[in-house]
Amino acid sequence: MNPSNEDDLITRLTRSWTQPSFVRLGLGHDCAALAPLSAKALPVLKTDALVENVHFLRTQSPRQIGHKAVARVLSDFAAAGAQPRALLVALGLPHNFSPAFLIACYAGMQKTAQAFGVALVGGETTRSAELWFCVSGFGLATAKTLCSRKGARPGDSLYVTGTLGGSGSGRHLRFTPRLPESQWLVRYHYPSAMMDLSDGLGKDLPRLALASRVSFRIHQKQLPLSPRTTADHAVNDGEDYELLFTVSKKRSALLEKKWPFKTRLSRIGEIVSSSQSSDSDGLILRGFDHLLPIST
Amino acid sequence: MNPSNEDDLITRLTRSWTQPSFVRLGLGHDCAALAPLSAKALPVLKTDALVENVHFLRTQSPRQIGHKAVARVLSDFAAAGAQPRALLVALGLPHNFSPAFLIACYAGMQKTAQAFGVALVGGETTRSAELWFCVSGFGLATAKTLCSRKGARPGDSLYVTGTLGGSGSGRHLRFTPRLPESQWLVRYHYPSAMMDLSDGLGKDLPRLALASRVSFRIHQKQLPLSPRTTADHAVNDGEDYELLFTVSKKRSALLEKKWPFKTRLSRIGEIVSSSQSSDSDGLILRGFDHLLPIST
Repeated sequence: MNPSNEDDLITRLTRSWTQPSFVRLGLGHDCAALAPLSAKALPVLKTDALVENVHFLRTQSPRQIGHKAVARVLSDFAAAGAQPRALLVALGLPHNFSPAFLIACYAGMQKTAQAFGVALVGGETTRSAELWFCVSGFGLATAKTLCSRKGARPGDSLYVTGTLGGSGSGRHLRFTPRLPESQWLVRYHYPSAMMDLSDGLGKDLPRLALASRVSFRIHQKQLPLSPRTTADHAVNDGEDYELLFTVSKKRSALLEKKWPFKTRLSRIGEIVSSSQSSDSDGLILRGFDHLLPIST
Repeated sequence: MNPSNEDDLITRLTRSWTQPSFVRLGLGHDCAALAPLSAKALPVLKTDALVENVHFLRTQSPRQIGHKAVARVLSDFAAAGAQPRALLVALGLPHNFSPAFLIACYAGMQKTAQAFGVALVGGETTRSAELWFCVSGFGLATAKTLCSRKGARPGDSLYVTGTLGGSGSGRHLRFTPRLPESQWLVRYHYPSAMMDLSDGLGKDLPRLALASRVSFRIHQKQLPLSPRTTADHAVNDGEDYELLFTVSKKRSALLEKKWPFKTRLSRIGEIVSSSQSSDSDGLILRGFDHLLPIST
């Protein structure tokens, strides 16, 4: 396989893309266009890049790399309580790329997008020094379901989905974006604030607290640890892609009773007034900084 | 200036971003969200990347580089007859970046976005081997105004805006996206097909013809040449970012009479049936392949 030019390569990479009926203009045009939205729908937007030697290694599974590129964006839609609808993929292509590897990456993207009812509708290709994918997403929310990092109030309970820590052992390539959980949570108006844990609870929780102008208390013993990890890992490894959200104390018991998913739900602490100090129960909060390269 | 971490850097880069009232969630959240659209509005999406040593050199003006990153995307919205509303910027950041250079790039992006009434609403930052910007755009069209490469019919006249060729001499960093011209054209339903010239007429016109399943004839003497360029340059240099569009023969005279812009309008040929061969009037059509790096 030796694609002779850009158009040929794009054709090979996107051959399996399906274009659902809500796609009015898709592949092969200057822009993609979608069917009109319902009157109350808020357009929701996200972009995110996956770079080799930072977010993945070329020795890892290309299907999992493609999965991760898409799933990271879907996780951000879950964080916002939004339903993703369509994705675009910009591809940075180094000289020494393998078409077979790329085709497998794109197959991984397509499989994950399709599993969540999301259409891949366009993109762009450019030469670059290293392999990267920049995935841009479009989705929908309503004013009532849209969530953000703002809105946590003193007294709210603090929850996470799933387990934390251990992403480095390959979990960061295989995680499941918490879209059904997020849609359920916002349908019943549980979260007062929500985000996804991409840089680690130790880095992301302070961001939520800052945006909401509150402080927090976490309880080390209540952290849901991934197998073979410590509380320090759970707080600082990063790339958990779990939901972190706050729920009013009044609604907490109902949430825990009604939670319909197999995905674990853990109350890990509570929100307190910003006049108090945040308390991490002895844990040092460092988190993961994406500006530092992977140490291999 | 030595931003100590990702959040600090983002704060510095986006300090001047304004968030118009249609932005419901902007900077500092997992996703951006916008106000609901009118009932007939089609969401229009685009992503595009600008990579150093491919689309720009770090020795060039950072404000112009920022301009180009945004203007390329706006040009694609013009191609689709759409109105851009909001942009996201993903940034690939090498170890040896200069914060002052980056701040100037972002100032260039902001200035151009603002000049066209478009809001910068979010983004992402990642470590990478070289500097790149991936700009994703969201805009609006209606079913009546949305344009694509499909729709050119035999007998249609072929037009371009502005002049062609000579982009290498710096024009590729300073071009003006043809949004007002595009909005005027689609309001009066002139184009049967439209695209923007990013890879050169010699490469882009065959793409339009292929999408519309037609052939074309161009007339060398009618090509609007940029100063100090030849017809060969006009066809093959690429990065003109002018509009290429087709108009029914019946409407051509009216278009030329009513054209209200100082921007030059040139009829450069016509569409013929796909049963005929395309005729480039002796010119060799090569165009610009973005997968080849800049030769400096």
